[in-house]
Amino acid sequence: MLGIIRVLTTTDEHILLEHSRLMEERYPIKTVTHCIEQQPYGVHDEKTLAESIPKIVQLAKEMASQYELDALTISCAGDPALDETRLAINIPVIGAGICGAHCAAMAGNKVGVIGITDAPPERLKKELADSFFSYSYVPNLRKSTDLFGENAKKELTDKINEIIKNGANTILFACTGFSTIHLKKYLSQKISIPVIDLVDAQAMAYQILKREVNE
Amino acid sequence: MLGIIRVLTTTDEHILLEHSRLMEERYPIKTVTHCIEQQPYGVHDEKTLAESIPKIVQLAKEMASQYELDALTISCAGDPALDETRLAINIPVIGAGICGAHCAAMAGNKVGVIGITDAPPERLKKELADSFFSYSYVPNLRKSTDLFGENAKKELTDKINEIIKNGANTILFACTGFSTIHLKKYLSQKISIPVIDLVDAQAMAYQILKREVNE
Repeated sequence: MLGIIRVLTTTDEHILLEHSRLMEERYPIKTVTHCIEQQPYGVHDEKTLAESIPKIVQLAKEMASQYELDALTISCAGDPALDETRLAINIPVIGAGICGAHCAAMAGNKVGVIGITDAPPERLKKELADSFFSYSYVPNLRKSTDLFGENAKKELTDKINEIIKNGANTILFACTGFSTIHLKKYLSQKISIPVIDLVDAQAMAYQILKREVNE
Repeated sequence: MLGIIRVLTTTDEHILLEHSRLMEERYPIKTVTHCIEQQPYGVHDEKTLAESIPKIVQLAKEMASQYELDALTISCAGDPALDETRLAINIPVIGAGICGAHCAAMAGNKVGVIGITDAPPERLKKELADSFFSYSYVPNLRKSTDLFGENAKKELTDKINEIIKNGANTILFACTGFSTIHLKKYLSQKISIPVIDLVDAQAMAYQILKREVNE
């Protein structure tokens, strides 16, 4: 079973369990999800990032002792507390941003990253290394909640077409909110280069970690 | 369908189709495999690497025009001709070494690489970047054919236990011959950290590239 940490405080079960549901439907992967406390707006700046780190480590310890986990993932493009959590518990720990970066670097060597922040997540960009091509966002889509707007998917698609025209051969989402609005499905009939979704990327990494050898 | 290029000339269908068979059994993935000509000992030094490049590019062009391929993979830890092939054809091209490196870097941050050559494949090491931890080989297992020896799996396991004792948190095979002898299955009851097999890694990358959105 994969433990999922959401770096956003919510009591709405539908929001909390969205990444679980996507992984269970698409692969299927058995998961358990918890979220950190007292961060209703998640991690969106240096201060909220620093605050999240001890909470993620503590939650990871609790989940690792409470459940039979094969691995644990921090489901946030910024990979907060990844190194600290790896030191704190004895099972493999993965993070959405790193998984996305490496899935994208397997798929192509000019990765166009699209997100909602001013700059790409640092760790994600570092792990992409020479495969990083560009970073973009849509000026009026800057909060997860903006993504539920009527034209959001159309505007993101226009931006992605611009990134491809500029030379990218792979698209990497740098926001798990794009998974929630099913942007990859919307794009699937509209563009022909690989698109890496962060929930898919975490599911892939988990399959690599736990794959039993069926022979 | 995934096109597989084997960088080793063989008329033995069992050897030729081994990577196809492993992918079809384990995932399943539909594949077609061809091998380059006049390299019965594969790629094992600078000269044979240089010779292989135009042959791989030519074979990739033929396969891309002959079959309905979603992607093509160069199934060799050294990733020969990867950049050249990406320029030559219009479908995503992946390579065993790069896929292995990125699967390993998703799984852990201290990757112990084990192969049969004097040094790790250059591109694989480069893509691992900061996640590279060490490179090892077993002195008397230096050719693919040595791997069929009676004690090969036991000797490789002893070496892998030494790598883990030294501090690696993930093991990456840098030889597709380890897939052929089913080393990962042999290890699965003996060690507890993630083990990345290059055939599995290529299958993962292909799933990322082609995954249709089933919702």
